[in-house]
Amino acid sequence: MDFASDNAGGASPRILDAIVAANGGFTPAYGEDDYTRAATKMLSETFERPCAVFLVATGTAANALALAAVTPPWGAVFCHEDAHISDDECGAPEFFSGGAKLVGLHGPHGKITPEILAATLAKYPRGLVKQVQPAALSLAQATECGAVYSPAETARLADLAHEAGLAVHMDGARFANAVEALGCTPAQASWQAGVDVLSFGATKNGALACEAVIVFDPDRAADLAFRRKRAGHTLSKGRFLGAQMKAYLEGGHWRELARAANAAATRLADGLAAIPGVRMPWPRQINEVFVVIPAAMDRALRQAGARYHDWGVRGLTPMQEPGADEVFVRLVASCSTTAEQVDGFLRVARAAAGRQGRPTY
Amino acid sequence: MDFASDNAGGASPRILDAIVAANGGFTPAYGEDDYTRAATKMLSETFERPCAVFLVATGTAANALALAAVTPPWGAVFCHEDAHISDDECGAPEFFSGGAKLVGLHGPHGKITPEILAATLAKYPRGLVKQVQPAALSLAQATECGAVYSPAETARLADLAHEAGLAVHMDGARFANAVEALGCTPAQASWQAGVDVLSFGATKNGALACEAVIVFDPDRAADLAFRRKRAGHTLSKGRFLGAQMKAYLEGGHWRELARAANAAATRLADGLAAIPGVRMPWPRQINEVFVVIPAAMDRALRQAGARYHDWGVRGLTPMQEPGADEVFVRLVASCSTTAEQVDGFLRVARAAAGRQGRPTY
Amino acid sequence: MDFASDNAGGASPRILDAIVAANGGFTPAYGEDDYTRAATKMLSETFERPCAVFLVATGTAANALALAAVTPPWGAVFCHEDAHISDDECGAPEFFSGGAKLVGLHGPHGKITPEILAATLAKYPRGLVKQVQPAALSLAQATECGAVYSPAETARLADLAHEAGLAVHMDGARFANAVEALGCTPAQASWQAGVDVLSFGATKNGALACEAVIVFDPDRAADLAFRRKRAGHTLSKGRFLGAQMKAYLEGGHWRELARAANAAATRLADGLAAIPGVRMPWPRQINEVFVVIPAAMDRALRQAGARYHDWGVRGLTPMQEPGADEVFVRLVASCSTTAEQVDGFLRVARAAAGRQGRPTY
Amino acid sequence: MDFASDNAGGASPRILDAIVAANGGFTPAYGEDDYTRAATKMLSETFERPCAVFLVATGTAANALALAAVTPPWGAVFCHEDAHISDDECGAPEFFSGGAKLVGLHGPHGKITPEILAATLAKYPRGLVKQVQPAALSLAQATECGAVYSPAETARLADLAHEAGLAVHMDGARFANAVEALGCTPAQASWQAGVDVLSFGATKNGALACEAVIVFDPDRAADLAFRRKRAGHTLSKGRFLGAQMKAYLEGGHWRELARAANAAATRLADGLAAIPGVRMPWPRQINEVFVVIPAAMDRALRQAGARYHDWGVRGLTPMQEPGADEVFVRLVASCSTTAEQVDGFLRVARAAAGRQGRPTY
Repeated sequence: MDFASDNAGGASPRILDAIVAANGGFTPAYGEDDYTRAATKMLSETFERPCAVFLVATGTAANALALAAVTPPWGAVFCHEDAHISDDECGAPEFFSGGAKLVGLHGPHGKITPEILAATLAKYPRGLVKQVQPAALSLAQATECGAVYSPAETARLADLAHEAGLAVHMDGARFANAVEALGCTPAQASWQAGVDVLSFGATKNGALACEAVIVFDPDRAADLAFRRKRAGHTLSKGRFLGAQMKAYLEGGHWRELARAANAAATRLADGLAAIPGVRMPWPRQINEVFVVIPAAMDRALRQAGARYHDWGVRGLTPMQEPGADEVFVRLVASCSTTAEQVDGFLRVARAAAGRQGRPTY
Repeated sequence: MDFASDNAGGASPRILDAIVAANGGFTPAYGEDDYTRAATKMLSETFERPCAVFLVATGTAANALALAAVTPPWGAVFCHEDAHISDDECGAPEFFSGGAKLVGLHGPHGKITPEILAATLAKYPRGLVKQVQPAALSLAQATECGAVYSPAETARLADLAHEAGLAVHMDGARFANAVEALGCTPAQASWQAGVDVLSFGATKNGALACEAVIVFDPDRAADLAFRRKRAGHTLSKGRFLGAQMKAYLEGGHWRELARAANAAATRLADGLAAIPGVRMPWPRQINEVFVVIPAAMDRALRQAGARYHDWGVRGLTPMQEPGADEVFVRLVASCSTTAEQVDGFLRVARAAAGRQGRPTY
Repeated sequence: MDFASDNAGGASPRILDAIVAANGGFTPAYGEDDYTRAATKMLSETFERPCAVFLVATGTAANALALAAVTPPWGAVFCHEDAHISDDECGAPEFFSGGAKLVGLHGPHGKITPEILAATLAKYPRGLVKQVQPAALSLAQATECGAVYSPAETARLADLAHEAGLAVHMDGARFANAVEALGCTPAQASWQAGVDVLSFGATKNGALACEAVIVFDPDRAADLAFRRKRAGHTLSKGRFLGAQMKAYLEGGHWRELARAANAAATRLADGLAAIPGVRMPWPRQINEVFVVIPAAMDRALRQAGARYHDWGVRGLTPMQEPGADEVFVRLVASCSTTAEQVDGFLRVARAAAGRQGRPTY
Repeated sequence: MDFASDNAGGASPRILDAIVAANGGFTPAYGEDDYTRAATKMLSETFERPCAVFLVATGTAANALALAAVTPPWGAVFCHEDAHISDDECGAPEFFSGGAKLVGLHGPHGKITPEILAATLAKYPRGLVKQVQPAALSLAQATECGAVYSPAETARLADLAHEAGLAVHMDGARFANAVEALGCTPAQASWQAGVDVLSFGATKNGALACEAVIVFDPDRAADLAFRRKRAGHTLSKGRFLGAQMKAYLEGGHWRELARAANAAATRLADGLAAIPGVRMPWPRQINEVFVVIPAAMDRALRQAGARYHDWGVRGLTPMQEPGADEVFVRLVASCSTTAEQVDGFLRVARAAAGRQGRPTY
């Protein structure tokens, strides 16, 4: 009953098999191998456009490299105030960019609205030397609150950004889950909606350790090979990254994996929604379920061995905040989550609700 | 016949098996798992001392993190002028340290001598504000020329460094091969000889992608967790790094692998030494063979599909430099190199030598 | 009628004379001269405590050096969201610190409240590797809204910061004006209230180009000489910085200058307050006057040659924001501002108010 | 008798007068004033070409900003191994560039030769990802050994650099002295010979604290305003930098000052050359005299209050190195140096030589 993170599970068997299969024989090092070449080609096909691709082992590396490629040291990156790049990467974008500033924007469910973006951009006029310069908009797809941007929403924000001369980055650590939820093509959710650089995640969705920085305009990718090398993110046995990404894409495996994770979350959300005393501040969209539960239920679940994160009040309006006897938690399903695990969790939750509900006279 | 790099081969089957075995079930992310804990414990045992350990996926990351931990942005790192950290990492130490300066020292076979170190340190008095400040000595074990430092040699250099207030870093990308060549314990080659921080390599010696930054004085490791995270080198599914390192150490597997690589290089070096027209500018010590061969032999070998790097004149004295009809090459054996591959290479070399040697009248 | 900035005026004649007087003869370069030594000694006397002093030519340099001395690259600096270090220095603290994050806090009149500081600190627990680490609190004395912290207010905030392991920095670009307004000693406003490092400004208050980074605990100043040199802020003819600071302090000249600037602002504020249609959203404390004026008055003043900045809505509550026919402006008096200039400005303002008031039938 | 540095003297009276004259009244801050505009215009006239100009207070800032403008963080700057940017600025170019590598080249008298440059460039092929990328050539005019590059020499080196895609920077801290020695125009010594960015020094030649970064191709200057601001080098009372530079250029004052300094050095060098036991390893070209003198003479001079730097063996061939009873020293004349000071120095030197020469029976 581990719902702590989509990193808590292992790798998809198919991806693991691909690693084992890639092990034999000798190949050129540092990404000059056929596996990496094949993965790059498949990404271009998946996104219906020639892409410059840089494989790395972590999402933080992908995000920080992508942002550094489009942001000077004196640049401002506009992102949601709760964004992973701002809160959970220990300053990686600042490090890779040489000291850029992340400007955090308000917005419901981790999403940036056009109104807030426009208002913020107005405060950062280009050329005002005393201020950092507007450089990039970074959208998380999905957000830290498990929300997704529709292609139209992305396009609206990207248009504003482009008009102001910004590049558009998408943190797609859960891009697969988002695309699956949206029912659109990868291209529709990214470059066709105005995204210039995408951190395309695989690790949370079944890879062992593999992410791709995808630059849709190959001309803008010139520096990334040096940035990656210099950051220690060019794996010497690069074939293992290539093999993971290849297996991840082959036959739409990545969509299958995301579908499974989203389905497990649906089962979990539906089950919880039916339990008295449980409330959901916003609808579930991907493989994450955010719920306010009674404190007693929380205790029962943890006692039963369930793992998940207390989410504080993040993303909640004052009206939605947990009461004295409640906690707000995040439950993450992954492609490794089984129906049995979900049902086991629900059984404990239901039992706790029952006990709580019983009159005490 | 791939002698281009010890990165050209795959992973040792035992290490690959360990990755597969570690895949099941859920574990905490970001290195808080039992595999990583076990690997850390085993490293402390291997080095006969409590160690702070930070696993990462590349040697460049290990070196750059280790150096940044002991060098301020205005620090000088003294290393050999041909050192990997200086020539082959695209400025990673400069990036991670925030702009430190690598000062390259001359010396035969990639080794720094006490005389040159002392003379250089004299040019960097501590406290002279206009100059970068002496911060670290970095020794490669083995060097870019495949030479090893004996524990006594390391100790002599480390003493000079410590007297001048420097920390001592060892780039041990081929530490296993060096220790095997020296016939000493890991402790003797490292902290007992004065090394403060070690980049302990596994990737070149049979891991898929795994290196450890080992800080022998745990008190000096406080910053490294933040530096690693911020550099995007804290793998979310950290269990896979832990599993690799664990399997690498278990039952002395790492020594076996290095022994095999060194033995293959011995076979290769002995075979080449017996061929007329081939000369070795310095004795082979680890799994790398540096030889001057006739240009015709070089052509024959490459035609036969052999892969290896032209080494220019690096490490050679003017007297040793290749003549007009010669080339200087580096041949690297790895734990994946078989006797058959070596013998096949030697057959082509011998045949080429025979043709060349034959009088043409 | 230049009320744009306290940088718009020249230098105080006494300071200029001191520069001229220091010009003769030869002195050691790079701050090893007697003028700098004397200035350092006088600062220690002024602050009633031995201080480590680093003179530089700009306030941005002073702030960025001071912050870098107490903040690691992965550190968080807590400051007001409108702070000069955050909004007006083009990312200098990020640059000098190697990528630290400035966390902007709400608060009235540019001031941080203990409640908001405590709540923010709670979100940055020490040791949570994924987040930047709490490192420093930076208070502006006076703030961007011309408000001052009483010694008790500073102490309350500094206590919270110290309890959380943070260093306390004070941006004292207008420290003289603030101390004068508070009627306290420099020591009371700084280290006795818990300030660890002070950017002690002189340029805005009558120097040509001179600021001091003052570290109250000399043990914490070890790195600053290198940081300053490496940032190009160690003037070769350092005597000219020393001479400015010496003349600035001698005979309490700095207090006189601040008194004059504050008095001019008082005259201006009092005059404006008496004009119908002019309103002040908060009381004036130092040499800056923030007023909402009729748009017609604004036009008249600018037509008459007055210079000052439109302040948008910064620092205002929604209730205080200017109406459709109003503008919110900042007027800065300096030690060069004369009563005639103030009165001239007021005359134009009054005349405009008169015209506006007149019925148009 | 201060020959320690051309920074040891004060400012030229005309420049000081200009500062005083610029003090009255109000001007826009941060370099938007008429003095700065006039200085920029005069620099364009002096160099016979439209220039982008950025005034700063120190030579280290000028060099580091100039280099950062043409070098990415992963770039290599080729300079002489004894260059000021490499040895005397505490890593400022590394800091400003975000971690670039300075590659030191051998060469007589601090000068880089085309042969060595070509050989070094061959080791840094563009696009080899594991290495830092060739970005800039930096020439010191004059060098640390007081040598000058003729326009033809500069052009030859600049051509090699441009062919390899590098930008050419000139560290002109003593540009005035060099131009005076060469008898050429500023344009001939800089952009007409291929220089792209020049650090144009004034401080060592009579300014109080003023240098200009001059970008000959204004299109390449886009980032410098932000870099300067963010480094704390945009002076708020910018008029004082403008006033200095204006007075420095007006009526060819800068050439006069350099002529005076060079003449004093000529007098000094000629006088010393005539003293038995004194030898000059290379001819004097600018305002610096490098001489090997008897140790007894050194003692006598220092006893008499003379100040100058021991130069070790820098720039000397083994044959030229000082013997057991000799020292190698650098004597710097400045525009403040008088004939009396020179003659006084020579008197002491001659007397010491006489005593030494006298037989002791």
